[in-house]
Amino acid sequence: MMESSSGISLARAEAFLRLFAILVLVLTACLLGFDTQTKLLFSTIKKTATFRDLGALQVVVYVDSVAAGYNLLQLGRGFISAKLKGKLINVSYVTLPWVCFLLDQAAVYTVFSVNTAALQGSIIAVTGESSLQWMKVCNRYTRFCIQVGGALLIGYLASLIMILLSSLSAFSLFRLYSPKQFLLLKPT
Amino acid sequence: MMESSSGISLARAEAFLRLFAILVLVLTACLLGFDTQTKLLFSTIKKTATFRDLGALQVVVYVDSVAAGYNLLQLGRGFISAKLKGKLINVSYVTLPWVCFLLDQAAVYTVFSVNTAALQGSIIAVTGESSLQWMKVCNRYTRFCIQVGGALLIGYLASLIMILLSSLSAFSLFRLYSPKQFLLLKPT
Repeated sequence: MMESSSGISLARAEAFLRLFAILVLVLTACLLGFDTQTKLLFSTIKKTATFRDLGALQVVVYVDSVAAGYNLLQLGRGFISAKLKGKLINVSYVTLPWVCFLLDQAAVYTVFSVNTAALQGSIIAVTGESSLQWMKVCNRYTRFCIQVGGALLIGYLASLIMILLSSLSAFSLFRLYSPKQFLLLKPT
Repeated sequence: MMESSSGISLARAEAFLRLFAILVLVLTACLLGFDTQTKLLFSTIKKTATFRDLGALQVVVYVDSVAAGYNLLQLGRGFISAKLKGKLINVSYVTLPWVCFLLDQAAVYTVFSVNTAALQGSIIAVTGESSLQWMKVCNRYTRFCIQVGGALLIGYLASLIMILLSSLSAFSLFRLYSPKQFLLLKPT
């Protein structure tokens, strides 16, 4: 009774966004994880570049996988609460939106920050930092670096989707409150 | 008429947080900007470490200064709209909260990401990245590096305050909407 058709369309938009976020996060992790390039150095030593060479890229692979799992759980939560709507609505009137809001905030800042850290590491790999005598590495492993760049770009797309998701969960939570009194719930 | 005493207390909490954010952002920028250490290398060459040696630290100094200015403007906006409350309330019923929400979101993600990028650069400076032949630099400029670490820690405090501020502005915006219909405004 409480949820109107627009409540369902909001849930649908959220489910669609979460599915999209999962796909994009998994794509980022795969693009980084399976990116390798082998080069001959000094015509004798073979060296292979992988995501393990830069700590920040490793962190992105792990964090993005965990974030994809988290969004999958949230997607399942959405389906379950849609099925049990009548029974759960009183238990989880404010608690569940608060939990979702806080978890979504934590997830989006984590994904966004590890992606940015990896971008920073990659920028140093592209340009070098002459004052610290850190040399460029991307002039040797060009194809590898282009794939990393693409993965990070898609990682930012994932961050953007998760920002939208966190705004949606903020909307779902804060619209329950009165527009006049601070932190006073609206009458149902 | 529309704003009750709790509306004023919300504005007060926001003003207090913004003032705190300005102080912390300026402190971060100053700690980084005025951090220098000079060392003799090979007993002949003098080398001075400053925030200009690492691109990411430069960006933090500039972005944190701009963010402090932005929060100052928002603080002024709060005071002006408190003075002109009766006159502005109809013009800015939803537009102003939306603008504040979007600007706050942009500001918090920018500050958070440049801080994280600088942290990533600094971690490489502390640990080095042996697979890429980037060497440690913090064993030579220890005092400089400790000050950078402190500044970044305070930068994360600033990010945390700005996350709270963006949640407050999301609250101020989304509580204006109906809890049942999607994006339907409540009757005033």
